[in-house]
Amino acid sequence: MSKKGTLYGVGTGPGDPELLTLKAVRVLREADVLAYFCKEGRRGNARAIVDTHIGEDMIELALPYPVTTEIDAKHDDYRAAIDAFYERSARAVMEHLDQGRSVAVLSEGDPLLYGSYMHLHVRLAHRYPALVIPGVTAMSGSWSMAGLPLVQGDEILRVLPGTLPLDRLTKEIAEADGAVIMKVGRNLSKIEEALAACGKLDTAVYVERATMENAVVEKLDSRNGRPAPYFSTILVPGWPARPLEMPS
Amino acid sequence: MSKKGTLYGVGTGPGDPELLTLKAVRVLREADVLAYFCKEGRRGNARAIVDTHIGEDMIELALPYPVTTEIDAKHDDYRAAIDAFYERSARAVMEHLDQGRSVAVLSEGDPLLYGSYMHLHVRLAHRYPALVIPGVTAMSGSWSMAGLPLVQGDEILRVLPGTLPLDRLTKEIAEADGAVIMKVGRNLSKIEEALAACGKLDTAVYVERATMENAVVEKLDSRNGRPAPYFSTILVPGWPARPLEMPS
Repeated sequence: MSKKGTLYGVGTGPGDPELLTLKAVRVLREADVLAYFCKEGRRGNARAIVDTHIGEDMIELALPYPVTTEIDAKHDDYRAAIDAFYERSARAVMEHLDQGRSVAVLSEGDPLLYGSYMHLHVRLAHRYPALVIPGVTAMSGSWSMAGLPLVQGDEILRVLPGTLPLDRLTKEIAEADGAVIMKVGRNLSKIEEALAACGKLDTAVYVERATMENAVVEKLDSRNGRPAPYFSTILVPGWPARPLEMPS
Repeated sequence: MSKKGTLYGVGTGPGDPELLTLKAVRVLREADVLAYFCKEGRRGNARAIVDTHIGEDMIELALPYPVTTEIDAKHDDYRAAIDAFYERSARAVMEHLDQGRSVAVLSEGDPLLYGSYMHLHVRLAHRYPALVIPGVTAMSGSWSMAGLPLVQGDEILRVLPGTLPLDRLTKEIAEADGAVIMKVGRNLSKIEEALAACGKLDTAVYVERATMENAVVEKLDSRNGRPAPYFSTILVPGWPARPLEMPS
């Protein structure tokens, strides 16, 4: 029986291919198999980010999400469809690991922060050699592009999925020092309502496709409710003392 | 008058030199001046992380913190000493920028997440061309080493400085899904007390010098209160369903 292959969760960073780490580049060059989640018929962002580092002899394993847009995400049928998909994906990866082939699974941003890779990790990392290569998160990409530090000193940062119900979202934003709201998309008007209820709408900043060529950074309240993609981010600064005037 | 130089905030990542991004490496090779915060008489971690990328003709600007260990951090004198230090540091950087020299300021982890670079950024980024190169955060380094995803789906992540008072810390941990506690050091026993009060001491994981050669990852409750350095991290997982057994 051959030695088991190693599972790598590889963070690709937020979008700019230059934000790959040296370690991610090395692992992508050394691994036998490149696996990535994507929409049916597309390669997806993560695969595009690493493109220049992938050799022609690498085995590619696309893991297309099932089409679930017709099913409510809160419904048991959705949960079941997604769970079955992650089970199938884990098995597809295992087939390579069992043959002694190392598998690099791409993850946009950081693999263990809300990434789909986590669902493979919890199924496989206790059964195979496994290594997670951390990446620059989408939120770091967003506040770096905006040049906006959110917290300092003793302040608390909250990372909030925009999918939360309005009352919970409002409470979390109101009590937070700084906050990052992920998964904006169809939740945009709800998020704006929550921010307005806390008096934080006027300081919030909207970031779309952070660190990519076609990135957008603008004050949220100047957008007039234009639709937002799912992977946009809203920054709610805590630290109020910016910019500082230097004493002369 | 010469053209103003560009200010770069460069994230070095959590410690492993391979976790530098390609972009950070490029900027470090192209910049005229390398600036970094450090303790008096030491080069510090950030400078060590980038060492192999620094050319001999680069101008180095060390910014040693004032010795404030004798003053209570809550005291006005401490605040005044630190503010004066950041003012002096900003002026030292400005001298180069005004001469048209680009300055790369190192920041461990990500520059805008609790980094000292933020205090230069708020003083200078509105007056000079400025670009922040995001880095892998210490918390991503920590949960990646531990192989421990903290949150998924609709769960909220809270980033908590261990310097918070006990009652606030306890409330924040109790209400959090997943949490990361930074700045452990002398706050360790207080943090353990807060975790115990929420019934979360037994699942918390301690990480020291994440991603470095001499890193430590262990269950917090098996450490028996051994002292911890300031830059250690405690991970409090939300997502309970790990590891999953695959149906056969």
